[in-house]
Amino acid sequence: MSNKRILSGMRPTGKLHLGHYTGALENWVARQNETGPDGNRVYDTFFLIADYHNLTTSLETDDIAANAVDMVIDWLAAGIDPQKSPVFRQSMVKEHAELFLLFSMLITSSRLERNPTLKDQIRDLNMDAMTYGHLGYPVLQAADILLYKGNLVPVGEDQIPHVEITREIARRFNKHYLLPDGVAVFDEPEPKITKFSRLMGLDGKAKMSKSLGNTILLSDTQEEIMQKVRKAITDTQKVRKNDPGRPEVCTIFSYHRKFSDAQQVASIEQDCRSGALGCVDCKKMCAAAIAEEMAPMLEKRSEFSERRDLVQDILKDGEKRARAVAESTMQEVRQAMKLG
Amino acid sequence: MSNKRILSGMRPTGKLHLGHYTGALENWVARQNETGPDGNRVYDTFFLIADYHNLTTSLETDDIAANAVDMVIDWLAAGIDPQKSPVFRQSMVKEHAELFLLFSMLITSSRLERNPTLKDQIRDLNMDAMTYGHLGYPVLQAADILLYKGNLVPVGEDQIPHVEITREIARRFNKHYLLPDGVAVFDEPEPKITKFSRLMGLDGKAKMSKSLGNTILLSDTQEEIMQKVRKAITDTQKVRKNDPGRPEVCTIFSYHRKFSDAQQVASIEQDCRSGALGCVDCKKMCAAAIAEEMAPMLEKRSEFSERRDLVQDILKDGEKRARAVAESTMQEVRQAMKLG
Repeated sequence: MSNKRILSGMRPTGKLHLGHYTGALENWVARQNETGPDGNRVYDTFFLIADYHNLTTSLETDDIAANAVDMVIDWLAAGIDPQKSPVFRQSMVKEHAELFLLFSMLITSSRLERNPTLKDQIRDLNMDAMTYGHLGYPVLQAADILLYKGNLVPVGEDQIPHVEITREIARRFNKHYLLPDGVAVFDEPEPKITKFSRLMGLDGKAKMSKSLGNTILLSDTQEEIMQKVRKAITDTQKVRKNDPGRPEVCTIFSYHRKFSDAQQVASIEQDCRSGALGCVDCKKMCAAAIAEEMAPMLEKRSEFSERRDLVQDILKDGEKRARAVAESTMQEVRQAMKLG
Repeated sequence: MSNKRILSGMRPTGKLHLGHYTGALENWVARQNETGPDGNRVYDTFFLIADYHNLTTSLETDDIAANAVDMVIDWLAAGIDPQKSPVFRQSMVKEHAELFLLFSMLITSSRLERNPTLKDQIRDLNMDAMTYGHLGYPVLQAADILLYKGNLVPVGEDQIPHVEITREIARRFNKHYLLPDGVAVFDEPEPKITKFSRLMGLDGKAKMSKSLGNTILLSDTQEEIMQKVRKAITDTQKVRKNDPGRPEVCTIFSYHRKFSDAQQVASIEQDCRSGALGCVDCKKMCAAAIAEEMAPMLEKRSEFSERRDLVQDILKDGEKRARAVAESTMQEVRQAMKLG
């Protein structure tokens, strides 16, 4: 039996931050490296640079190529292994567009209008009008996943509706079109519920986000991390060093929970509540813990950031491998649809 | 200066009828063969088998390949010259899907919902739900035209709104993306208002149409034409042979106007009104006039219908030539958009 396939992707927004790491990358690397009792890999993992998806919310493309490379450098630094997992740009594999067009015939526009995530996006981005392509992004997502015959889609609880659209499209395709031997082209992919830990922003906002400017980048040096952490919001009621603090509302404490060891976390919590630990010292420990976890990445990162041509080679190789899979799927699609 | 380009297309619905001939093909062939004072062709013509467009209103594809070949045989019989004009299937040139996807980001879905033709189609086809792909068919049409840098789009008065969407998309593309030297990738194509003569159906309905079963096929023999014309609806008030008739309401007279010579038309009109000419004789003349015009096509048709492999070769060649143009356009598009 062949491995289950997982396609994961991100829009090329440039250098990644800690939130990307804890919210996705960490999990991607774990899935990539997961082995079964026989010592073999459990999953075949594909990593997509979703540059077409970028266009659904912004037509600006001046930085898209550089942003893709910067992002891939962070992926590689975090442990994505291009030998194991093809890393590729969506726009370099024409079959994404082909399957998107074919899938667009298999879902009604009213179904897409009812997509709750779309409504949130339009509100969050303050968009006055939605493009046709934006309305169709779950169709493009379905094409992304099914082009590689993804069986599992790692998602948080709130993203299950998304996977449902992909499943519906696969189901409708199979209902209308079968291979000559009566075999279905697509399996309906299963959502793989995954606990992604969301990271608070340095400003105390619920989410670390580039557009909010409240991030620690994966490419930040130890000094930069220290500077950023020093300015972070803590418990606003803890004004003087010896005031008792409330860890449950403190950004820095949320980072400790993620990056410091359990024993340290316990003593920090106690000393903060009692007033024995001031924010300045607490922040120093926090920055050190983050820097320690990031150190190997930072080192690996520097290898690639000096060799951007190497990243280009990795992309070219990944695109070749992705294309081979995509072409083989499209051959089946065309055969089932009796096209060409 | 290079020739103006015209892209024309039809959905592959199978064997064509007289309405397709007078409503499109006749004009296609005239544009293909039009020469200027220097004896050179005025236009570069491209003929598209719009198989993807078929999917916007029907998911049935069992006959799509055979229908495409049958249609192309009629095109060739009517005078489309594959040496002059590439003849190709949309689904065999991946770049249609690519440009469709990119263009989908350049138009709002509400703009597409306001497309009056779409509303008519949904009503006419009694569709209970519109697919996302159906909503976007003017975007696919824009991709079809602009992929070949079509400058002129031959349309009837009522189709001008369609060309407007293509022009809007070209304009928006050029506004956001330019080639490095500041040159725009696309010209805004101009509508070329063309008088297409619509042919009445044999049943007296305003339009000859396959779904209404009121057609004379381009592949019908002289006898088949005679049989069909014999059963056609004429002036329902002309019951007996010598009753005076009203040519202005008569289907057969509308055919005479198209296929009989002017002198004959004049005498038929007079003799019908006076009651001197009965419908049986009038129909015989009509069938003969149609058969005469169709005879060379019928002959040419038989060459190809016995050599369907020849048609496949023509398609393969056309697709190769179309792809070369499409790839070159997409290269410019990618360069302007800084993709890949």
